Amino acid sequence: MTFILHPKLETKPLVTDLPLCKVLLQDEKHYPWLLLVPKRANASRLIDLCKADQGQLMEELELAQKVIWSLFVPAQLNVATIGNKVEQLHVHVIGRFKQDPAWPATVWDHPVRCSYSEQEKEAVLKQLKNTFISCA
Amino acid sequence: MTFILHPKLETKPLVTDLPLCKVLLQDEKHYPWLLLVPKRANASRLIDLCKADQGQLMEELELAQKVIWSLFVPAQLNVATIGNKVEQLHVHVIGRFKQDPAWPATVWDHPVRCSYSEQEKEAVLKQLKNTFISCA
Repeated sequence: MTFILHPKLETKPLVTDLPLCKVLLQDEKHYPWLLLVPKRANASRLIDLCKADQGQLMEELELAQKVIWSLFVPAQLNVATIGNKVEQLHVHVIGRFKQDPAWPATVWDHPVRCSYSEQEKEAVLKQLKNTFISCA
Repeated sequence: MTFILHPKLETKPLVTDLPLCKVLLQDEKHYPWLLLVPKRANASRLIDLCKADQGQLMEELELAQKVIWSLFVPAQLNVATIGNKVEQLHVHVIGRFKQDPAWPATVWDHPVRCSYSEQEKEAVLKQLKNTFISCA
């Protein structure tokens, strides 16, 4: 079966396309927030990936974390696969700051939401794309 | 430097001791909830682990997920490293049910909390220990 991005994920801007995962930007300006979506049909949980894909995912997660870490210098990195609302396997990589609206709580159900302006989104996407290249 | 469990983690019951991680039980009866703590001093984030440890962590996470999956038959597995409050690296592995108090929200900041009774805790620990042996 062919991999197709879930409709709720395909609206998110593409940052880069890695060997296993599509890397998408979550449009929340308070948090540098990436979603890594393994290009595997019918995967909903980490245990749905074969061992080789799990290893590749760990490598791509390391890269995504280093991109966020070097670009935004956060206090912490939150890495999570939840999938209670969107069943297609996706892993959140989020830079957290002690001054962000949700700190030290988690971001997923926090009421404060704020999109980037179009200009900000273009700028952050450009920064992210360049840093994926320089960290790879 | 020697690894020592963080004071906020060392109060949690030990389920099993794997090559890399101590596996602890989070005392929340609504959710089968494990914490995997890599026995590495000064690790706060996944990127603090060397590649070999990251690979081993993925294997131990797979085992922990299979234990929760086979024992409790949840609707979903949430796997996350957050560490905003307890800086020592620890990975949550949580079985989620469509009937649990937080579904489909995340559990970390959900207000409903409910400990096991001593008897329930002993029973769930025994089940978990046995299932870690049978799934290994």
